[in-house]
Amino acid sequence: MPTPLGDAQRALLDRFTAGELTALARLISLVENGRDGFEALLDVLHPRLGRAHRIGITGPPGAGKSTLTAGLIRHYRAQGLRGGAVAVDPTSPFTGGALLGDRIRMNDVARDPGVFIRSMATRGALGGLALTTREVADVLDAFGFERVIIETVGVGQSELDIAAAADTTVVVLVPESGDSIQTMKAGLMEAADVFVVNKADRPGADRLARELSMMLHLRLGQLLRNIPAHHGVDLRRTAAPSGPVPAAAPTAPSDSWEIPVLRTTAETGAGVPELAALIGAHAEWLDRSGQRRRRRRQRLAERVREQVGRRLHALAWAERGGAAVLEEALPALEAGEVSPYQVAAGIVRAAVPE
Amino acid sequence: MPTPLGDAQRALLDRFTAGELTALARLISLVENGRDGFEALLDVLHPRLGRAHRIGITGPPGAGKSTLTAGLIRHYRAQGLRGGAVAVDPTSPFTGGALLGDRIRMNDVARDPGVFIRSMATRGALGGLALTTREVADVLDAFGFERVIIETVGVGQSELDIAAAADTTVVVLVPESGDSIQTMKAGLMEAADVFVVNKADRPGADRLARELSMMLHLRLGQLLRNIPAHHGVDLRRTAAPSGPVPAAAPTAPSDSWEIPVLRTTAETGAGVPELAALIGAHAEWLDRSGQRRRRRRQRLAERVREQVGRRLHALAWAERGGAAVLEEALPALEAGEVSPYQVAAGIVRAAVPE
Repeated sequence: MPTPLGDAQRALLDRFTAGELTALARLISLVENGRDGFEALLDVLHPRLGRAHRIGITGPPGAGKSTLTAGLIRHYRAQGLRGGAVAVDPTSPFTGGALLGDRIRMNDVARDPGVFIRSMATRGALGGLALTTREVADVLDAFGFERVIIETVGVGQSELDIAAAADTTVVVLVPESGDSIQTMKAGLMEAADVFVVNKADRPGADRLARELSMMLHLRLGQLLRNIPAHHGVDLRRTAAPSGPVPAAAPTAPSDSWEIPVLRTTAETGAGVPELAALIGAHAEWLDRSGQRRRRRRQRLAERVREQVGRRLHALAWAERGGAAVLEEALPALEAGEVSPYQVAAGIVRAAVPE
Repeated sequence: MPTPLGDAQRALLDRFTAGELTALARLISLVENGRDGFEALLDVLHPRLGRAHRIGITGPPGAGKSTLTAGLIRHYRAQGLRGGAVAVDPTSPFTGGALLGDRIRMNDVARDPGVFIRSMATRGALGGLALTTREVADVLDAFGFERVIIETVGVGQSELDIAAAADTTVVVLVPESGDSIQTMKAGLMEAADVFVVNKADRPGADRLARELSMMLHLRLGQLLRNIPAHHGVDLRRTAAPSGPVPAAAPTAPSDSWEIPVLRTTAETGAGVPELAALIGAHAEWLDRSGQRRRRRRQRLAERVREQVGRRLHALAWAERGGAAVLEEALPALEAGEVSPYQVAAGIVRAAVPE
């Protein structure tokens, strides 16, 4: 039961289906700006999803994420694959776009018709930036790009969630990050399927790569300690002081993904083919292990939840007069005569009859 | 029309009103964990709000925010004021709390009964971390703390929004931040009512402070250029090539707040009294200019919006079976037979009868 489309929407969709880049750009704008009917369009596109491998690229500002994104897209193009990218860009009216340098670096790949790169504004997205970014990634997927890269500054939980919704999440660090691994946002470390130490020609790159590997081993060790010792050797018993510790170590669960740490120099392209190969290996593991299906299922459920939130919000605020109720209640709220909880209850009662 | 309370809640509220710290801690836990009836308690507390001056402290990891928070609270205590703080702590199951060092630094002020410091978990807060953090700040305000500090890592939009909801927002940078002012999250710069360059004994502190001042002047200049020249001198005419530029410069609108840049060394306490004085001056300006009322009004409206969202979410997912509908729809979603938009529409129809 697909949602009915208007004539203009149908015409746009036809051009989109024919592979016109201008139609792609137009459709992304409709989604980004939450224009009337964009949900009906996404609804129609839904059965075309799932062909692209989605790659999240995240990390601190200045780590070289955009250069790496451009490098990956160039690599994929050389293999005959088309690449789309959506970059979350913390533009602001004050600075007028701190990431201008990054955009320029991406331009040299952006003249190729098999490539499409979109910078998202970070404010005013209907229903939240995370949802809108994922919807733009959907549009790129539906258009037929075999690789879709989602690039975000991995500094806050919401930015991180965007990248972590990809099939493969690449966390990019630079030697300068080394000092602060301890104070780094913890979620950033947990999101990684692949670690990249970029600007690997700088001092400290080897040390950071070693520290990351060590940390990943510690983590694996912690996981193993939490596995009940019903298979093989009980570590606590064999480590008894009376005898030597046997060399036989427990192995990781047979089909787990061991998070690799790769050194790259995105500026020169060094390491980019290796990164693409690791992403490919992870994609194969996702298929083999059933993880791809599990991740996509989670993503679908999350999408439904977000949509419900967006619709309920529109219902309460746009359709059933919540804004007017709030406006009227403000003086009493300020005077402390009513609480926000009472006003909210009233708005919900108006929106949702018993 | 306050919401009716249960016996246990009334007893807790009596102890809270009598100033018992254990009751404060208990009430905060109820709010943080979204326990049954917490909204009724917040509802009752609402008329007691508005006495505390709320100070947001934000900045990159490692800038010394917690040390500065502890220093401010110590300063306020010496003036006979009570200080509460809520710190948003990006704990994770992996690292088990990267900010342990910060917590320890805060402990030496935490043995004083006129002080209360709470670290928030960053996951699982009902209705979002931002809302819950502000509600905990409300509880501290209602308890009677004259100063309430909200400390967040200013790295993502949501973390920033938390701090920016304060009466006075202090953005803390360190000399090491200097290189990256250009790539720094733009919103961080915009949120500041006061800039602090902490660790001012390190090289680069003076340069960073100068750059910040320059940036603030540029911004002021931009604002002035956008003011129509109906008063005084038209800059474009007086700057005509034929004559010298007159010395008379336009002044800023008479009661605007000029964002100051202060150097501190929180570890030694240097600059903390000056910071407290600047926060006090900003508080006076908020009252004088009417900004405090405007900010509180915005905060109340925002609170109502968040509450409506929370209630609608609970309604759709907990009360009217949204989860069961989603569960049932997952296979068809995976097969691409229905879209998330159709499933969401069904859940909303079930939750909100026409």
